[in-house]
Amino acid sequence: MKLKKIDKLIKFDLPEANIVVKGWVRTKRNSKKFSFIEINDGSCLKNMQVIADESLSDYNEIKKITIGSSVAVYGNKIKSKGQGQKWEIQADRIDIFSIAHHSFPLQKKRHTDEFLRTIAHLRPRTNKYGAIFRIRSELSYAIHKFFKDKGFTYIHSPIITALDCEGAGDMFKVTTVDMEKPSLKEGSVEYSQNFFGKEAKLTVSGQLSAEMFAMALGEVYTFGPTFRAENSNTTRHVAEFWMVEPEIAFYDLTDTMCLAEEFIKYLTQYVISECFDDIELFAKFVDKKLIATLEKIISSDFIRIAYGDAVDILNSSETKFQYDISFGNDLQSEHERYLTEIHFKKPVIVYNYPKTVKPFYMRLNDDNKTVAAMDVLVPRIGEIIGGGQREERLEILLERMGEIGLSKEEYWWYVDSRKFGSTPHSGFGLGFERLIMLLTGVGNIRDVIPFPRTPNNIEF
Amino acid sequence: MKLKKIDKLIKFDLPEANIVVKGWVRTKRNSKKFSFIEINDGSCLKNMQVIADESLSDYNEIKKITIGSSVAVYGNKIKSKGQGQKWEIQADRIDIFSIAHHSFPLQKKRHTDEFLRTIAHLRPRTNKYGAIFRIRSELSYAIHKFFKDKGFTYIHSPIITALDCEGAGDMFKVTTVDMEKPSLKEGSVEYSQNFFGKEAKLTVSGQLSAEMFAMALGEVYTFGPTFRAENSNTTRHVAEFWMVEPEIAFYDLTDTMCLAEEFIKYLTQYVISECFDDIELFAKFVDKKLIATLEKIISSDFIRIAYGDAVDILNSSETKFQYDISFGNDLQSEHERYLTEIHFKKPVIVYNYPKTVKPFYMRLNDDNKTVAAMDVLVPRIGEIIGGGQREERLEILLERMGEIGLSKEEYWWYVDSRKFGSTPHSGFGLGFERLIMLLTGVGNIRDVIPFPRTPNNIEF
Repeated sequence: MKLKKIDKLIKFDLPEANIVVKGWVRTKRNSKKFSFIEINDGSCLKNMQVIADESLSDYNEIKKITIGSSVAVYGNKIKSKGQGQKWEIQADRIDIFSIAHHSFPLQKKRHTDEFLRTIAHLRPRTNKYGAIFRIRSELSYAIHKFFKDKGFTYIHSPIITALDCEGAGDMFKVTTVDMEKPSLKEGSVEYSQNFFGKEAKLTVSGQLSAEMFAMALGEVYTFGPTFRAENSNTTRHVAEFWMVEPEIAFYDLTDTMCLAEEFIKYLTQYVISECFDDIELFAKFVDKKLIATLEKIISSDFIRIAYGDAVDILNSSETKFQYDISFGNDLQSEHERYLTEIHFKKPVIVYNYPKTVKPFYMRLNDDNKTVAAMDVLVPRIGEIIGGGQREERLEILLERMGEIGLSKEEYWWYVDSRKFGSTPHSGFGLGFERLIMLLTGVGNIRDVIPFPRTPNNIEF
Repeated sequence: MKLKKIDKLIKFDLPEANIVVKGWVRTKRNSKKFSFIEINDGSCLKNMQVIADESLSDYNEIKKITIGSSVAVYGNKIKSKGQGQKWEIQADRIDIFSIAHHSFPLQKKRHTDEFLRTIAHLRPRTNKYGAIFRIRSELSYAIHKFFKDKGFTYIHSPIITALDCEGAGDMFKVTTVDMEKPSLKEGSVEYSQNFFGKEAKLTVSGQLSAEMFAMALGEVYTFGPTFRAENSNTTRHVAEFWMVEPEIAFYDLTDTMCLAEEFIKYLTQYVISECFDDIELFAKFVDKKLIATLEKIISSDFIRIAYGDAVDILNSSETKFQYDISFGNDLQSEHERYLTEIHFKKPVIVYNYPKTVKPFYMRLNDDNKTVAAMDVLVPRIGEIIGGGQREERLEILLERMGEIGLSKEEYWWYVDSRKFGSTPHSGFGLGFERLIMLLTGVGNIRDVIPFPRTPNNIEF
């Protein structure tokens, strides 16, 4: 008897004798002389139909099997005479591991995403969420494969940090201080009692670490969790999410735009090639235009447009925006979506932003007003990638740090990298969850994360 | 002119014309009519020797190049007439990006690991640390490949959690509470002012999340950062480290031991096949017995021994241990190392530990005294993997939770998984840094992490 996964059974297009399948019951119909049981084992979207006939010795027990129960089915894979599946298993024996209690919430009916969020521990047992988390896994692999094939080194940048990388963005504090009775000194917490001897926070980006490694290993990337303590309850924000951040020595802004475009196309191609069954589910039930969107991403050249020209387009549009836009203001989500969804109808890379809206480490352009930063905007999501060329010139970097009050003593090691073999270098960050939303059509970021963390929500 | 990486130039065993190499100067010798410059670009351990002769137009500038400087070299790859390298580049032109300041600390001499820890941002520019971080990256990829090839789904379990998974182990608190003036209620912090509305911590394990997904997708694994706020200053402990945690539905203890053994052998084989140059460096300079150790891991069957028998061996040994051992006590590092280094001289899997020394979720054996837990012990490291079969029987799980005071209301979703289609299942956790230490011979965990976090150390 050989244990088989359902995806393999479906792929192998010949009958197979003496096999075992272990999984969970998705549906069951008892007729007079047979039970039809559909089993899912998580290996793929499809179930395997099992025929248990009354001749089975424990048929009375088998009749009691409920939806959600766990079983092992022993038998032969044969051509199905029924509709809807090519293969089925004629059971010789069914072992029941556990009969699911009748209160099992995933009975055969539609559930709202809102309800399923309240049972996030069970939702991967549905078709939709099983598919989402298989796709999430495949995309993670594709990210590693993309960079590995190019010779990049994967870096684990620190999660706990003393830095405030973006100079903005609320951060979570990490502490071992007794919060009931913190020892104060002149009204401030004495961080010497903390584990690290100073204030520690959860990282918002691995970029500065990655830059150090790019100066040694050339081409590196991070892929890990990042955090924002922003109290925003939108469909695109969570407190904990995964980010991919490549950083490459000797790359300029154009190289980086090329890499970003190639990366998104590669990942889109990858899910179509490797997860088509799962993707089809979303095309049917979540976003009818999904396949067209994905094809468009693969086949079109991304628009590249300077921030200033993008502002001109927005200002000459007839659309009434909630926020006015003029040179020097950051693009709002509505502006980003207008450019990519309405105006160009494909992905757009906006570059050369005003220095005032981008972090200090972006490379100053010769106009002294803009920096060599770029954002990749995609339909339905808006910004999916932010990046650019970094300031490699020591003097200018120090000036920019001074402007925003960053201490060069605290960032001594970052400054070091501009003293010792500084080179042009560039990189970007891609929000992994937004990528999954783009490629599946799922509209709420809470639904592409196993156990999402949002304000007032840390269940599971 | 084609930009080339040095690893590719070395691999391609023919002359190549009109190439560019960009990297950092590792050594330089000026002779009368030539400069010999060795360049490293991080793609591999080896440098590329560049010959710049006095006929180059900016030869006076080239003579000023210091160690650590960043350059682009244009020229032809030709057979080297010198010793020590097969190929070298005859330069037509050298562009200098940046001359490293003379204070660059990585001059051509040996540095201690202790000193290099103080310049963790620069140490990947040394041979040893470049090799460590390339190996770390390759091993990460190998982990994903191992599981992907077996059909496992990769899960991102949450980093911020309200749980205390192991019922022990100090955890870091995550908070947005104003620590200067926390609002107290009857002496306790009012967590309603916290971002999540309750106390939040950094995870010590993704296992409980992974179990939920194993009950849906069958075979899953996590690979992500985990945290311990333990104030221990040893060569094997850090506050932040990466862990791999596979969790598999329908696996029993024996299946799990087999998977663990296969996994370690696969990863060992992988670094030998894919990173031999880098591994050789460690065999030469760090641990002379490294290759023999790795060969032994690959070729030997791991010993499997019940905890009770292991205790008998320890008690009948002539070695004087610091800690006495008798049935019911956990093995100390000295005992683990005795078993694997002295007694068996190969990896050892100890199983069926007393229930008192293992977490509540380990499956109770019929003797009612031991649980189906197992640890994999390896020479020099001791425990590298801990795992076992989980308690899938609802009644027994609730009893065990009650014993240690875990609230079944708080863990309602975990309990759910035993109500709705519970199955036998098992898994383990592997400490990724300890794996790197095992496979490189590096003795201090601080030296296999880009920017390690330890008590009073959060620099970079």
